[in-house]
Amino acid sequence: MAGKKELKYIQSLGQKKHRDAEGLFIAEGPKLLAELIQEIPEQIDHVYALTEWTSAQQGKVYPFPVTDITEEELERISQLSTPNQVLAVLRKPEEKPMVRLKGELILLLDAVQDPGNLGTIIRIADWFGVSQVVCSRECADCFSPKVVQSTMGSIARVQLHYVDLPEWLQAQPDVKIYAAALDGQDIREVPKPEEGIIVIGNESKGIRPEVLQMADVKLMIPRIGQAESLNAAVAAGILMSYITT
Amino acid sequence: MAGKKELKYIQSLGQKKHRDAEGLFIAEGPKLLAELIQEIPEQIDHVYALTEWTSAQQGKVYPFPVTDITEEELERISQLSTPNQVLAVLRKPEEKPMVRLKGELILLLDAVQDPGNLGTIIRIADWFGVSQVVCSRECADCFSPKVVQSTMGSIARVQLHYVDLPEWLQAQPDVKIYAAALDGQDIREVPKPEEGIIVIGNESKGIRPEVLQMADVKLMIPRIGQAESLNAAVAAGILMSYITT
Repeated sequence: MAGKKELKYIQSLGQKKHRDAEGLFIAEGPKLLAELIQEIPEQIDHVYALTEWTSAQQGKVYPFPVTDITEEELERISQLSTPNQVLAVLRKPEEKPMVRLKGELILLLDAVQDPGNLGTIIRIADWFGVSQVVCSRECADCFSPKVVQSTMGSIARVQLHYVDLPEWLQAQPDVKIYAAALDGQDIREVPKPEEGIIVIGNESKGIRPEVLQMADVKLMIPRIGQAESLNAAVAAGILMSYITT
Repeated sequence: MAGKKELKYIQSLGQKKHRDAEGLFIAEGPKLLAELIQEIPEQIDHVYALTEWTSAQQGKVYPFPVTDITEEELERISQLSTPNQVLAVLRKPEEKPMVRLKGELILLLDAVQDPGNLGTIIRIADWFGVSQVVCSRECADCFSPKVVQSTMGSIARVQLHYVDLPEWLQAQPDVKIYAAALDGQDIREVPKPEEGIIVIGNESKGIRPEVLQMADVKLMIPRIGQAESLNAAVAAGILMSYITT
């Protein structure tokens, strides 16, 4: 049972200004929470759960408090259209030191604004072994509930940085920049890089011109049919697949 | 200006039962509508637009009525969180003859339930020249507003069929079935097929066992990192890219 004030406080974490002020974010559902308990238990501040979830834990002892709540209470604090047993409040990770670039492949996102796309791209990075994703300030907030849910737990393994583009890129003169472009080289024929920055652009505008101009290699995904473009996350998945494997 | 009853009627097309009863669906925004006007003008029943959209048409004559509406009226009928100038009501296409299989690559979706994923996969099919997508009855409705928006116009070019699985598959004994599976063959090493059925599974459960058992070839996307899985649409994009190009 949670108090009214507490419920209202948790619900407020759906908004960026409250997440920023409190340094907290939320994650929901047994599958995602199981992954977060395994990866970042120290960041979990509080869990609110139906008895359905609590009894399935079979008496496990956790380093965070668990409050039993009712379905009505879960519905009030949940950001999902169909609430799913459990909601966790987590502390945001501490700012990590700046990105290592030598010997690393890095994803750079230029104004990826759809939360589902951002979360899906973080999951793609995790699948293909990319441990750092750099976001331009115009990207969606990686701690928004929809992003966290779409990462399916990869948010706990991938390091995220928000930077000013193109200033940040200009400060990385020794690293090759790869950018998706319709007039680029066929991705099937580009030698696989060991290090570099791979840029993914905005859903409708693509990569901004001043960043595209800085690209050393432009990459093109072959097209057979008539669609004008691919979804940003799908394009990122195809690029990363050819580049890393 | 549109009447209250008319606005309510259009708004009701957000629900499947009303779309099915009326044989209609809706599409929104100038970019998507421009594509639909080019591809399937004969299916457009009525357009409701702000003067912003109408005046940008520069006096073009269309074979469908255009009603000027106010921002408040658009907000009432729009299914988007941010309404975007124009909403069109379209007639669903007539049932096309059954799928051709000889010499064709076909995508088969087993219970793809997220509308965004379904629309994105239809767009992927269009990009990679796959003209037919077969959906199990458990898939999302391809005429739901979110699906139509996510296809970015590809809904006008890709033929869709809803069937009972696995009965439908059992009736196609001469065609090879390809299915994504974690224990499959590396997609980089599988010979590119000229024809066949490529199966994509449900977002959390994957491909149902009785369908997976029928697969002639299992396909695996190499993984380097730690994510447990990829988003269904991203996996479809990567598979189609290796299979078709």
